[in-house]
Amino acid sequence: MPEPADLPVTVLGLGAMGTALAAATVVAGHPTTVWNRTPGRAGALVAGGAREAVSVRDAVTASPLVVAVLLDHASVHQTLDPVADALAGRTLVNLVTTTPEESRELAAWAGSHGVTYLDGGIMAVPGMIGGPGAEVLYSGSRAAFDAARPVLDTWGESTWFGEDPGLAPLYDLALLAGMYAMFAGFFHGVAMVGTAGVSAGDFARRAAPWLAAMTAELADYADVIDRRDYDAPGQQSLEFSDLSDMVRASEEAGLAPGVVAAVQTLIRRQVEAGHGRDGFARVVESIRTPEPAPAHPVTAGGTR
Amino acid sequence: MPEPADLPVTVLGLGAMGTALAAATVVAGHPTTVWNRTPGRAGALVAGGAREAVSVRDAVTASPLVVAVLLDHASVHQTLDPVADALAGRTLVNLVTTTPEESRELAAWAGSHGVTYLDGGIMAVPGMIGGPGAEVLYSGSRAAFDAARPVLDTWGESTWFGEDPGLAPLYDLALLAGMYAMFAGFFHGVAMVGTAGVSAGDFARRAAPWLAAMTAELADYADVIDRRDYDAPGQQSLEFSDLSDMVRASEEAGLAPGVVAAVQTLIRRQVEAGHGRDGFARVVESIRTPEPAPAHPVTAGGTR
Repeated sequence: MPEPADLPVTVLGLGAMGTALAAATVVAGHPTTVWNRTPGRAGALVAGGAREAVSVRDAVTASPLVVAVLLDHASVHQTLDPVADALAGRTLVNLVTTTPEESRELAAWAGSHGVTYLDGGIMAVPGMIGGPGAEVLYSGSRAAFDAARPVLDTWGESTWFGEDPGLAPLYDLALLAGMYAMFAGFFHGVAMVGTAGVSAGDFARRAAPWLAAMTAELADYADVIDRRDYDAPGQQSLEFSDLSDMVRASEEAGLAPGVVAAVQTLIRRQVEAGHGRDGFARVVESIRTPEPAPAHPVTAGGTR
Repeated sequence: MPEPADLPVTVLGLGAMGTALAAATVVAGHPTTVWNRTPGRAGALVAGGAREAVSVRDAVTASPLVVAVLLDHASVHQTLDPVADALAGRTLVNLVTTTPEESRELAAWAGSHGVTYLDGGIMAVPGMIGGPGAEVLYSGSRAAFDAARPVLDTWGESTWFGEDPGLAPLYDLALLAGMYAMFAGFFHGVAMVGTAGVSAGDFARRAAPWLAAMTAELADYADVIDRRDYDAPGQQSLEFSDLSDMVRASEEAGLAPGVVAAVQTLIRRQVEAGHGRDGFARVVESIRTPEPAPAHPVTAGGTR
């Protein structure tokens, strides 16, 4: 019987994240095999005790647990389709960001080749791996999750969401949607104050604590949404939340209003539907019920 | 000489915010006169020691310091234009959210009537007024700011940005842009996980600490932007930040991708300009340089 900290693992893909994950398993004492499409990135890991595989097949056959940290869904198939026979009987942990549908497709592909599938979404930047605050969300085979825990727990807090392999990617994308929207809103603010000569650094010193403090509002918004309590008293109304002035100020300053205009579109649709006195959280209903496509197709990728 | 805590002040507008501001000055011992377009909202304040004015003219002439907490820029003119003569020689503190241009217009109007102008942007919800964490950003007359401090400091931390009255509204809108974008991204995540039956409350318990932790990245992004150091090594690239999968997953789930599609548009423009290997912070350049208007106008308010 191997010790708990002696579970052989293979990491496919040595970008910043793959390298950080492999380093954590090496430090924890798991025999670690690494592979990258482009050689030459394994130097530090090999010096620390990892083995660099000479081929994907070599890498896959080295461990019962194979972790994919590749570019995207297509690259997982490109890398693993040719060695599906060698992967049979092993567990594939897919940490590549995919859509829920793509994850389910990979799980079905794995199942058809006798491969156990576990999907994971990493809620951390590479520098956080193995430290406090790093969290990885999993879905798919519960048995595979339990068996792999000695390795998974070297990266951060491990949480399993359910057998549906699409659950973790869904949660992953949902949390990333919040993050990217927040970053884009921050950049919008940087551009706005920049028109008055204020540096991004000066703005960040105010924006970071401000946005962190405002996350305290999310629990209340969630409560309103779950109870569909949009007309309960005491909420900031949709009318009051109108962002026309922000869109106008951005345009007056010569900036692209795209991100704030998109938020205003969600608000405006609820106001136009007669819900202007309801609470701001009702904008989630604009997301849940898309507008019909315009009669004339707009330019690809265009927002205004 | 009045005591420091004895500066008469008038508050125009008794919505949730105006009421909170007036309550704070009453508690601090400043003789407080209040007025609201619709009577009947001053009960609790009057019980606490405030005086309810019988008219705008009565309100304005009661104090050297007149604070406007009305609906919008137009409502400030509607309320104060008829009593501009009575306002002469006093200080107007405008806490209404306006664009920087509207603030400058109000300052010019005030100046032409012998009124000293100070603009303020409140970075707090009404419940935070007078407590820790509340902050109000000011710009305009420095002399007025200094003289009004005994009143202003009852609301929260007071910061003066400069003589240009448009500075505080600019900062205000910039911080609110970040907040509203973050909220919209959160709602987008709520809608995504909701398609798998996950409650908004469950999502909020993960999203709030996640987004708060991610604000730690803003200082680094700001540093890159201020140094225009978009090609320095170690950054998450624009190519890697591509949100096509998030937009696609949203559409597959029957959701309006508006907010994430707007972020993806900012990313895509930089990638198409050949900067795909540069860092993610470069999207601020997409905001600073709007795309030319499309050849065929799109439907008003439409985002996809």
